[in-house]
Amino acid sequence: MKVENYTETVAEKYGDLQGVSIRWVVDKGDGAPNFAMRVIDVEPDCNTPYHAHDFEHEVFVLQGDGVVRDKDGDHAISPGTIVYVAPNEEHGFFNQGDEVLRFICVIPHQDR
Amino acid sequence: MKVENYTETVAEKYGDLQGVSIRWVVDKGDGAPNFAMRVIDVEPDCNTPYHAHDFEHEVFVLQGDGVVRDKDGDHAISPGTIVYVAPNEEHGFFNQGDEVLRFICVIPHQDR
Repeated sequence: MKVENYTETVAEKYGDLQGVSIRWVVDKGDGAPNFAMRVIDVEPDCNTPYHAHDFEHEVFVLQGDGVVRDKDGDHAISPGTIVYVAPNEEHGFFNQGDEVLRFICVIPHQDR
Repeated sequence: MKVENYTETVAEKYGDLQGVSIRWVVDKGDGAPNFAMRVIDVEPDCNTPYHAHDFEHEVFVLQGDGVVRDKDGDHAISPGTIVYVAPNEEHGFFNQGDEVLRFICVIPHQDR
């Protein structure tokens, strides 16, 4: 069993994106056989890429205010919001508040 | 895309357990192909069963104080704690605080 605060996982840069970091808090290295739990931080006025890929996201917003964008427009998110992004669905998370936008994002392992 | 507050999902009783409820906030009915996200509430002085099963848990504690028990004993949990429970590992979540213990728990679909 692994039990620790999420901040014990190092926050990595999210590619070349400015103001976005990611912690892989539960991953294959912990023995997880199917999916990974990440905690993503987006600084004010920053966002994750608006993109699509062939796997799903299951998201729970922990802190902050902003929107998640899809083909239909922007949808408000705040603490307690859950978001399900289907495989191949376009999406991006935009911080529109004054504090860090922080959310959990679970994805299937990419080599399954 | 599904975007809503987790409280919009009905909280169901967790079997016959007293003081434990569960919301299946992202599940197969939403189109999720691989795993389900649940939000579990445990009332003060209550707990989830101490048990094991052949699938994993990936947990993030949102609120409250308590312990997660395994074969080695009790491990403190509080907001921001992540817990990885491996398949077939014994575990139980115990609320030892004065408010609801609330955590996210992600599991693979059982018919995969």
